[in-house]
Formats: sequence, structure tokens, C-alpha cells
Amino acid sequence: MGGVDETYAFCWLNGRTMRHEEAHIAPNDRGFLLGDGVFETVLLRRGQAVWWREHVRRLQHGAQVLGMVPPGDNVLSNAFDEIVATNNLENINENVLRITFSRGSGGRGLSADREHKATLLLQVSAMVSPSDCARAVIVESVRRSESSVSSRLKTLSYIDGVLAQQEAEAQGFSEALLRNDAGRLVCGARANLFVWRNGELWTPPISEGCLPGIARGYLLDIARDRGVACREESLEDLRADDCVLLTNSLRGAMMLAEVGGIALRPADKCDDLTALLSVFRERMT
Amino acid sequence: MGGVDETYAFCWLNGRTMRHEEAHIAPNDRGFLLGDGVFETVLLRRGQAVWWREHVRRLQHGAQVLGMVPPGDNVLSNAFDEIVATNNLENINENVLRITFSRGSGGRGLSADREHKATLLLQVSAMVSPSDCARAVIVESVRRSESSVSSRLKTLSYIDGVLAQQEAEAQGFSEALLRNDAGRLVCGARANLFVWRNGELWTPPISEGCLPGIARGYLLDIARDRGVACREESLEDLRADDCVLLTNSLRGAMMLAEVGGIALRPADKCDDLTALLSVFRERMT
Repeated sequence: MGGVDETYAFCWLNGRTMRHEEAHIAPNDRGFLLGDGVFETVLLRRGQAVWWREHVRRLQHGAQVLGMVPPGDNVLSNAFDEIVATNNLENINENVLRITFSRGSGGRGLSADREHKATLLLQVSAMVSPSDCARAVIVESVRRSESSVSSRLKTLSYIDGVLAQQEAEAQGFSEALLRNDAGRLVCGARANLFVWRNGELWTPPISEGCLPGIARGYLLDIARDRGVACREESLEDLRADDCVLLTNSLRGAMMLAEVGGIALRPADKCDDLTALLSVFRERMT
Repeated sequence: MGGVDETYAFCWLNGRTMRHEEAHIAPNDRGFLLGDGVFETVLLRRGQAVWWREHVRRLQHGAQVLGMVPPGDNVLSNAFDEIVATNNLENINENVLRITFSRGSGGRGLSADREHKATLLLQVSAMVSPSDCARAVIVESVRRSESSVSSRLKTLSYIDGVLAQQEAEAQGFSEALLRNDAGRLVCGARANLFVWRNGELWTPPISEGCLPGIARGYLLDIARDRGVACREESLEDLRADDCVLLTNSLRGAMMLAEVGGIALRPADKCDDLTALLSVFRERMT
């Protein structure tokens, strides 16, 4: 990673651990040319992956939807073991592992032939400490396409996330919230969206155009186990008395203090939510 | 390019012409990780670029919208001259030049910092002879997001085009037509869409979620010059008595023989359209 600590000097590319400077992606790799592939970002705690099985399943599913032969469980596990050992990650509290799987090199144009040799890359980088309470803005220039299969996949074609994040930061906010083309709220640029409203936990259904987040699934499961009413329903807009949170695999659940300058209800005003998040964080291992 | 003719052995990467095997993209290039960049595909005729100025302008505009410093005219011209000379393209009737401009290497995550050193890559490949008359299908699993700025840019995040093309080919068709999230027809997976209806030339406006194609602009200009009524209006659906064509920079204008198994009106049944396309092809230099 650009200017990264020496600790993370090694990546794993197509079967071999190597220094980042030695790792080369071909200029006709379709990941580079067309965003043709999928990826995962995995939280590591002292060299242990959080939700490894779920990340592997989602990567494999995404690759299948793209018509690629997904990497096997063993290939991924072995690559993981190698990159953890080579970088001595057991000694570091938190890291981020990124797994990138692209269709690999191929001829010009959109058509993918079956002869492509896919590219599998694992990289590790430092975890940037999350802020406990973030400020978000609804970005209107980028929308999720609720009718597109790609909106439900974590593909390398992530420009909408980049643009939304850029727009949010330009306006002085740390997080971007996105609507779909129908105008309803769907997710963040890098997170799923939850609202605690009238003692119920709301989140937009996947059909609205969001990624089936792993943290999202866990939070819903834990909430249901605790008897919390969970509503996977469309969200037209936020209300000032909502508690709003974003979830993803790296940061878990993050409360929003405000959206677009409008203060939201703080989590500590919702005892049930605080208790739920506490259990969620405990189980995030 | 994978398995490409020796003729095209040289690409141009970040200031230098080199053999493809020597050209390396860094594994943390945001083009590879996030589809964060723009590209152009340019038709070359005996080493001369068709619509060079327009491609350069669109690439620069796209880079600016992404918040990148675009490559200057001279950098692009010099790179072009070098790649043409090194590959002896003056002697080859038709080629395809691809220009890829990515944000380059950076740290983990969506946020782009200003320190990124962008990646500029020029590659040449053989032109695959276009068929004169193609069979298309409307792909429903991928939609253009009419509200997203990225739908009007030629970004590296091209997975929707890949998926649509794959779906069309799986159904036995050569071209994919796409709707937007509102359900209206917008474009092809790699082309703009035109309909000749009642002696008028129809094409969806850019606001419907299509790329402002260079061939599209030329065809509209030429049609208007010839006094053809041009309607940039939404297209709900095609009709059996429409003549339908796709345009892009590589193939110019290509008639569709059918869409999803329904035969369309052949171009030779429309004298005015035939005359228009003949002028368009003459001027495509």
C-alpha cells in the first residue's frame, strides 16, 4: 500500500507471497480496465479474521454471478495464513485485509472469454481508528440502481462510492448516504444503513439496491434473537427523532450524530439500542 | 493485450513506450481496486486517430469530474505519436487505441488524497471486423442509473456493461440494450441508441443515463445539417416499424436486424436514413 508501514510489506498474488513492489498487475487485467471483479475487506484482530466464512461466501457468490470460477475455500485460507504469518499480524491489534478477485487478463472489449486466468490478490493495511460518532450527508449526485444486479455485489466497479465519499468530504462530512433512483434512502457509500425508530430497527431491504452487508446480517440476527422488531422496509427519509447507524465489516456499527447539519437522536437516549449494540460488538469476532 | 499479434507488442505507460510484459500496474492502483478512473477507445485508420480531439476532451472532462488533474493535450499527443510509431501502425488499416487514466496508487479506502500519482496507459489492439447488421436483446438485469453522474462518464467502473454483454451473449445475441431505473430504453452496453421513426431521428437524451457518445454527437450534427428532424426524447420501447441503430466511436453506426427475436425494419427500406448514414460514414475520419 502506498507509503504503508513496513509491517505490511508483503502481499499475496496468484499463489505467492511477495513484497508489494514485486507485485505486478498486468495492464490488460480486466480488473484494471473494466472494474471486472469482486472484493472483500475483512477485519483482522491479532491475525484472526472476523466473519471469515461470510466474506469467503460473498466473494465466491459474487464471482459466480459475474460468470467466473470462484477461488476455493482452501486457496483463500492458505493465502490468508501466508499473509498473516509473513506480515507478523498476530502481534497487531487490528488490521484490514483486502481480497481482490478480478477476471484477469484478456483481449480487448467487453466480451469475457473462458480462457481468462483470474487474478487473486490479498493485501493488508493498518486499521484507521473509527470515530464513535460520525457526521453524514445525503449525496444526491450518485444514486444506487435498485434494478441492477451489480448493486447487490461488491464489485471492483466502485466509482459511485468514490464519488459519493468525495462529495461528502467536500461538504465537510465524513460519511455519504445514498438514495436509489426511486429517491429512497438505501445505504452509505461504504456501509449499510439502520434506523432505530419507535423502538423498532429499520433497514432498507436488499432489493432497494444495497449490498447484503455481513455486519447488517449479524445485527438483524442479534436484534431478532433479542425480540426486537426488525423492519426491512423502504426508507423515504430520516426523522429528527431517529437514531441512525451505519454498519460494515470493518467498523461494526457506527452511530450518526447528524445528517446534513440536522442533529439526530443520540444512541444513549435509546436504552434498548445501546444494549443491542453492546451485544453486537461483543459478538463481532 | 493477451495473446495479441506481435504488431501491437508495445504499450505506453506513464511516460515511456515498453513491451506489454514490462508494463506493470501497481496492486494498489485505484483503477484496479475501485474502478477509479476514465478511459477512451479510439479508432485508428492507418495510424491516424478518428475524432482525436473529442476523445481527449471527454477523457479530460471525465477526469475533472472525478477530481483528478487531467493529462494535458501535449502529453496525450506525444504518447499517441510514440505508440503509433513503435507499433508501425501507419501500415495497418484499422486499429483500436485505448487510453486509460486512473487515479493511481493510494492508501486503503474510498477517500482519495491529492497526492496520488495518476496512471496513464495507452494500448493498441486489432480491430475486430464489425458485422453490418447485429442482433440485440434488451437486458433487464442491469439498469442505467439516470440520476447518477457516473452514467454520463466513461469510467473504469464498467461492470454493468460487462454483465449486460455477458447476458446478451448467453441468450445468443451480439448486443445488449439497456433500460434505466425508470424502465425507459437508454443505450447499448457499448453504444448509443438511435431510432428512425416516421422519418425522424430519435435518441434518448443524456439525462436518461447514457454516455454522451462522440459518434452520437456527430450523427445528430450531420442529421440536423441535412434538415432531418432530430428528437432527443425518452424512448419507452421499440416498435416493429422502427429502424434501430447503435453508434460508437469504433464501429460508427450499426443497424440492428432484430431485438429479442423481433425483426426490425431494415435500413434499406428507409431511403433518407441510408443517405444519412452514408454521409456519416464518409465523414468519420
